[in-house]
Amino acid sequence: MTVSLFDSELYGGLFSDREIVALLDDRARLRAMLDVEAALARVQGRLGVIPPEAAARIAEVAESLDLNPAALAAGTASAGIPIPALVAALREAVGAEAGPYVHWGATSQDIMDTGLVLRLRDLLDRLDRRLAGVIQSLAALAEEHRSTVMAARTRSQQALPTTFGLKAAGWALPLARHRERLAQLRPRLLVVQFGGAAGTLAALGERGIEVMEALAGELDLAVPPAPWHSQRDGIAELAAWFALVTGSLGKIGEDLVLLAQSEVGEIALGFGGSSSTLPQKTNPVAAEALVTLARFNAGLLTPATEALVQAQERGGAAWPLEWLTLPQMAAATGAALRLAAETLNGLVVDKARMTANLEASRGLILAEAASFALAEHMPLPEAQSLVKAACTEVGLSSHHLMDLLAEKTDTPLDWASLRDPADYLGSADRLVDRVLAVLRATADRNS
Amino acid sequence: MTVSLFDSELYGGLFSDREIVALLDDRARLRAMLDVEAALARVQGRLGVIPPEAAARIAEVAESLDLNPAALAAGTASAGIPIPALVAALREAVGAEAGPYVHWGATSQDIMDTGLVLRLRDLLDRLDRRLAGVIQSLAALAEEHRSTVMAARTRSQQALPTTFGLKAAGWALPLARHRERLAQLRPRLLVVQFGGAAGTLAALGERGIEVMEALAGELDLAVPPAPWHSQRDGIAELAAWFALVTGSLGKIGEDLVLLAQSEVGEIALGFGGSSSTLPQKTNPVAAEALVTLARFNAGLLTPATEALVQAQERGGAAWPLEWLTLPQMAAATGAALRLAAETLNGLVVDKARMTANLEASRGLILAEAASFALAEHMPLPEAQSLVKAACTEVGLSSHHLMDLLAEKTDTPLDWASLRDPADYLGSADRLVDRVLAVLRATADRNS
Amino acid sequence: MTVSLFDSELYGGLFSDREIVALLDDRARLRAMLDVEAALARVQGRLGVIPPEAAARIAEVAESLDLNPAALAAGTASAGIPIPALVAALREAVGAEAGPYVHWGATSQDIMDTGLVLRLRDLLDRLDRRLAGVIQSLAALAEEHRSTVMAARTRSQQALPTTFGLKAAGWALPLARHRERLAQLRPRLLVVQFGGAAGTLAALGERGIEVMEALAGELDLAVPPAPWHSQRDGIAELAAWFALVTGSLGKIGEDLVLLAQSEVGEIALGFGGSSSTLPQKTNPVAAEALVTLARFNAGLLTPATEALVQAQERGGAAWPLEWLTLPQMAAATGAALRLAAETLNGLVVDKARMTANLEASRGLILAEAASFALAEHMPLPEAQSLVKAACTEVGLSSHHLMDLLAEKTDTPLDWASLRDPADYLGSADRLVDRVLAVLRATADRNS
Amino acid sequence: MTVSLFDSELYGGLFSDREIVALLDDRARLRAMLDVEAALARVQGRLGVIPPEAAARIAEVAESLDLNPAALAAGTASAGIPIPALVAALREAVGAEAGPYVHWGATSQDIMDTGLVLRLRDLLDRLDRRLAGVIQSLAALAEEHRSTVMAARTRSQQALPTTFGLKAAGWALPLARHRERLAQLRPRLLVVQFGGAAGTLAALGERGIEVMEALAGELDLAVPPAPWHSQRDGIAELAAWFALVTGSLGKIGEDLVLLAQSEVGEIALGFGGSSSTLPQKTNPVAAEALVTLARFNAGLLTPATEALVQAQERGGAAWPLEWLTLPQMAAATGAALRLAAETLNGLVVDKARMTANLEASRGLILAEAASFALAEHMPLPEAQSLVKAACTEVGLSSHHLMDLLAEKTDTPLDWASLRDPADYLGSADRLVDRVLAVLRATADRNS
Repeated sequence: MTVSLFDSELYGGLFSDREIVALLDDRARLRAMLDVEAALARVQGRLGVIPPEAAARIAEVAESLDLNPAALAAGTASAGIPIPALVAALREAVGAEAGPYVHWGATSQDIMDTGLVLRLRDLLDRLDRRLAGVIQSLAALAEEHRSTVMAARTRSQQALPTTFGLKAAGWALPLARHRERLAQLRPRLLVVQFGGAAGTLAALGERGIEVMEALAGELDLAVPPAPWHSQRDGIAELAAWFALVTGSLGKIGEDLVLLAQSEVGEIALGFGGSSSTLPQKTNPVAAEALVTLARFNAGLLTPATEALVQAQERGGAAWPLEWLTLPQMAAATGAALRLAAETLNGLVVDKARMTANLEASRGLILAEAASFALAEHMPLPEAQSLVKAACTEVGLSSHHLMDLLAEKTDTPLDWASLRDPADYLGSADRLVDRVLAVLRATADRNS
Repeated sequence: MTVSLFDSELYGGLFSDREIVALLDDRARLRAMLDVEAALARVQGRLGVIPPEAAARIAEVAESLDLNPAALAAGTASAGIPIPALVAALREAVGAEAGPYVHWGATSQDIMDTGLVLRLRDLLDRLDRRLAGVIQSLAALAEEHRSTVMAARTRSQQALPTTFGLKAAGWALPLARHRERLAQLRPRLLVVQFGGAAGTLAALGERGIEVMEALAGELDLAVPPAPWHSQRDGIAELAAWFALVTGSLGKIGEDLVLLAQSEVGEIALGFGGSSSTLPQKTNPVAAEALVTLARFNAGLLTPATEALVQAQERGGAAWPLEWLTLPQMAAATGAALRLAAETLNGLVVDKARMTANLEASRGLILAEAASFALAEHMPLPEAQSLVKAACTEVGLSSHHLMDLLAEKTDTPLDWASLRDPADYLGSADRLVDRVLAVLRATADRNS
Repeated sequence: MTVSLFDSELYGGLFSDREIVALLDDRARLRAMLDVEAALARVQGRLGVIPPEAAARIAEVAESLDLNPAALAAGTASAGIPIPALVAALREAVGAEAGPYVHWGATSQDIMDTGLVLRLRDLLDRLDRRLAGVIQSLAALAEEHRSTVMAARTRSQQALPTTFGLKAAGWALPLARHRERLAQLRPRLLVVQFGGAAGTLAALGERGIEVMEALAGELDLAVPPAPWHSQRDGIAELAAWFALVTGSLGKIGEDLVLLAQSEVGEIALGFGGSSSTLPQKTNPVAAEALVTLARFNAGLLTPATEALVQAQERGGAAWPLEWLTLPQMAAATGAALRLAAETLNGLVVDKARMTANLEASRGLILAEAASFALAEHMPLPEAQSLVKAACTEVGLSSHHLMDLLAEKTDTPLDWASLRDPADYLGSADRLVDRVLAVLRATADRNS
Repeated sequence: MTVSLFDSELYGGLFSDREIVALLDDRARLRAMLDVEAALARVQGRLGVIPPEAAARIAEVAESLDLNPAALAAGTASAGIPIPALVAALREAVGAEAGPYVHWGATSQDIMDTGLVLRLRDLLDRLDRRLAGVIQSLAALAEEHRSTVMAARTRSQQALPTTFGLKAAGWALPLARHRERLAQLRPRLLVVQFGGAAGTLAALGERGIEVMEALAGELDLAVPPAPWHSQRDGIAELAAWFALVTGSLGKIGEDLVLLAQSEVGEIALGFGGSSSTLPQKTNPVAAEALVTLARFNAGLLTPATEALVQAQERGGAAWPLEWLTLPQMAAATGAALRLAAETLNGLVVDKARMTANLEASRGLILAEAASFALAEHMPLPEAQSLVKAACTEVGLSSHHLMDLLAEKTDTPLDWASLRDPADYLGSADRLVDRVLAVLRATADRNS
């Protein structure tokens, strides 16, 4: 029974991501918690905080125990968290002798947060690899299409010529910065949680910090200055990162949808999108989904951020806001990266249509070029007035802007060049070079 | 594999609701879509739009076909919607003769929206019944505790005496208004969707409106003036209603958490809330969850509302925002109503603690009472100054406000009455009467 | 000093609305609060709760007092609300005799909420009139363009022919429903607030309800069953209504932006949108702003809804969420209605371009028409296959779909009619009639 | 006329911040834009792109021109941006000769974005200093109160003893990490924008990148690989940072409100909070405002993040979402930092009340201590059962937990120590040391 599209068998192939979901689902949740209990026992056995035999027994059982989520459901609903039921089940499986040493000196949140961090570490590695892949696809498009001239469009109107290569380069840069951000947030996030019931490590007497450090070492996580039970900024920062990633992918999706419109037709997605009744249609389903996921994640970011307002040493109302938002945001991010990769790899660029669209305005898209060319012979505002007048006439006639302009002035201009969009690309090519250099540098730094 | 807490076997018992989820999950989605295809065939057969035998065959098969969501997953991912795959599967099951008449003149959105509306109708009936139940519990508490005196608290400070009955009455009124709102939005929401590929009913020639009306009749839904493919205000209004309901329940939860604090202790929840390491604790898990669900639904309301900005005749980016938000919001609302019912029915009110808390301020909570009593003998600001001075002394001494005041004035006041919180309840009792009358009237109107 | 675009002199002409802002700014806030204090004094004088001469004096002074917001700023910052400072200023202005009777038995929230409701009443009247105006413009467009054939577009692709009249009709219907919603929410919102410090009316002894009823009568507001200090559903419902209105207008804006694209060019906005460097451009500024305001209001709806979770008898953290969101949402709604009215009244429809865009697909937009025409002679799936094959050939050739189809079949079809988009409009015209009838009925009901 | 509380004279002293607002208001907006036009002219004069005399004239005039926002309002409303009107006004002020060289080769967004970045640079310096100040206050509290024992509370229930020093240390750590985050995001944000109409620098021929680099140098900003007109991740990251800061301050506010409750009374805010009718009250106004601002900023984060989905080379619907959200988020962050500083500096800690609250549970808060002490003599679960039974009896009797326990067991425990909360603080003191060391290190790194 699934109401969330991230869990839906029906819709999951579009809006969700099996690989990511598998890291976050009930079984993965329980596995990570048991891994933490196992590591805690091993560490405490090694330090002599609990008997070594008990530690060995607990670690062995915890590592192989296959708990059924449904069996812990009643306990979870009652306690608000699964740990009391999980500890009871683990104690029972461990047996009477070692059982008492299970979960020694820990609080539920220690196990849940550290378990979460373990799953996030794996998840972020995968998302980072996907990001790198999408960036690589975009870099390839930027290189391939550095001379593919097309209309730049600002505020939905044709503005100037640009290249599809520069457009792809502009899609890639934010993603490269997202990799940088991820590298910077990782050390703040991948931190062990171990503080005992109220964050003082009281149940472990003098040895709390020693155990905390050893547990971190065992799990290859960083050690915090103090337990972070109610300091949720690492999690909230991650939520924001998810929304930044899907937001930047949403921008790509939005652009693709606009380019794929019937009346524009400059790109086609290579797959999908059939209709139940219209045989001629190919809907840009994956590109649209990128926009959808961007807005959805942006929406979830509010409650995810409000989880920062966690009361006192542990707040029961704010903490679960993370559980309700973070896994879905991760799945949405995974799905968006998957869809972006598929879409960009299957992208069909229609250069002929790009050229046709450039020409359709009969030179209007080169109005600025004409202004600046004229401005070498007269003040710019005067040039702009002249061009503006000619632009108006274009709309009322069937003439080309340059023909109309040539009639209005005897300024000696290179009219042939002024008609050619490829001659008004400014620094587009060099900008692509600069972007590709940055993308390569980021790839090196993060690999 | 479930990442959403609404689908989680582990957490679902707390944050989700099986009855509601069952109305919204993949199977229910497919069942409703097939029901609409069946109804459409029946209606078109009856009107002679398609052959009656084909209609009968389609209806019969559609009503019993048990489609596996996973089998439609690939088609859904490709088309962005499940209908093309569903129609193909239904045609195959129906056979070559009747198959062509499946989904005649319809568009995918016709089937999906009408199917959604059918499920919502059932769902809203259930939520409305639950609302009625919670209101009834609150009315009973209001009646039972109309003389249970306790501290009213404004901005987290003790303000004046009130009664627990008046508090419960105040919790109930918004819920009664939510029932009213639901009754008013139903006719705007429970409307058939039938417009064909672009909302013109073109494939049905002259007979489109006739089929639309007959289909509405068959499904007992209202007929819209025109198809509402890209008019999503009915859905967005429902999303807002979900958030209003969980918001009002969140207020109850917030109050319960505050009343259940160790230092206040005026109520106890009758169940749940054990800790993994602290034997003395009873955490107000269900009350906290009400707050969590309120904030979560408020957060989802943004993308749900943005679904209104649906491009042109059908927008592929905005529409799925509804699919991603509405089912979870419904499940959250269902869970919140369930938790509220359980919590209120198990509520333990500690009158002794209420009295102790009232007395703890040594009369400060009756400062206003003293001001207004004195103001019968002097200007109010003068009385307030006198009382304010005495209030300051209470903090510095161990005396009761009224004793300190009595020393400062020889105004003849009924000091015994002024010390009694029960004598400064104003219209609390009559206000409870008024509220109960309104609750009864709403119950009658909506039953 | 203004950081909000709603207050900005620079940007306010676009995103804000002077008429609405004037109802909500500091002066209007203070005026409304003073009006409530005046009405309270009058009523209490009439009922003998305070001396009639004092009442007359208070009412007279309160009605003419021109308080400077800056003079109350320090008091507001200290108390968190302006009323203590306002009451002090009013008492001083009233003089020593009547001064003590100012604000008799009231709490700050009584004055602030009732003041808010008074301003909202006026504001909603104006918004409702604007809604009616926009609906009328749309009805006129629907009527005028009921035969203006254009491409319907689903998921950004040309789908079928429709009419601009039906599109305008579809824009209007949600707005008509918003008027209905407004009429329904008004009685829940326009309700007096009067409860004293903790909602028990304690300071007024036995006479609290009597004063509450009289105050409501004096201000022509409804009487609630009990004070609604911490029952904020009326306000949250209004916030949702604002977001519904701007959402529906955002849909219009989105459609207009898409229709105004250089490559589509089916409409032009009649004003604005020049560029600092591109003489040829006319940016659809107002239409874009409609989308912006829709998303902004949807975003503010989350904190506005969370104001429902107001703690206890008055919550100092949740209540101000209303102050931070509601005025801006109202101004955004006002601006959106103003922009929509201006835009629709200045709209230029380019029928030639609509026709050209329909023809550009060489018949693909009539593929469904062909399928259903063929389906009178063969099974629909067979017809659809035939058409789909022909559609593919259109893309590869320069032929018209119907020519290619005619080669593939000897089915006797009316090919001339099949080529004419105006012959495949289904019920578009009758749907426009139905919508216009509903719009007229709504107008009558709400006028 | 102001509807936003950030601009309100009445409310601004509480929810807004004059210093921050002054950096973001209309005058500051125009000043920054003129500064960019001046710098552009200087740089272009120096490079010989425009005549040096014209450059000098433009720079001189632009630096001193005092534009009236109202005078540009009509132009802004028409163009959707203020630059066309600003350029016209600047050209007029500059005179006919130099005028044409104003804004040479730039697009409106170049000027607006670079102007924004300049203001943000200043703003972030100030916010960083405020953060440092709040951290310092918290470090002082952590040091001063490292032995101030109080109840830790989890899920609203007393859990274990902790110290107020550790609590203050926990409040400080996220703020120190926010300084780190700020240092990391600065180089991504403080980047010049210069790309010309479509981001290709076409109007400058071969010299675009040279001008971009020189302009960055002139303004002491970083140079991007390419113009970032539609790459808004730097801005969205900043918005998230604002919400992270206010979220962490909101957690402090929430804790303060809870600690200041009448029934808890462990802290008092040193100022403000009087009531209009209740003389005994001191409302925690500033602490509540911290919670309010946290939720408000979290809400605005959604539309601020959606600004990432900016269409094509410049999107007129998404871009203004930044203008509508960012300034308010900055003002809210400034106000929250100001309120936090004032509140923490004026905080009054009531140690006696902390002790009394610890003792009120008659030992329940030391239940875990007893469990672990007993567990040295028996299995932990057995010890926990014993303690749980005794806990239940505490509730039914008037005895102390340790007395009841001592009756149940003859285990030789140090009962006096077990009764003393100060003896069950675990590593609290050493954790404070660790935190203080980190805070000092961060302060050094960022100063």
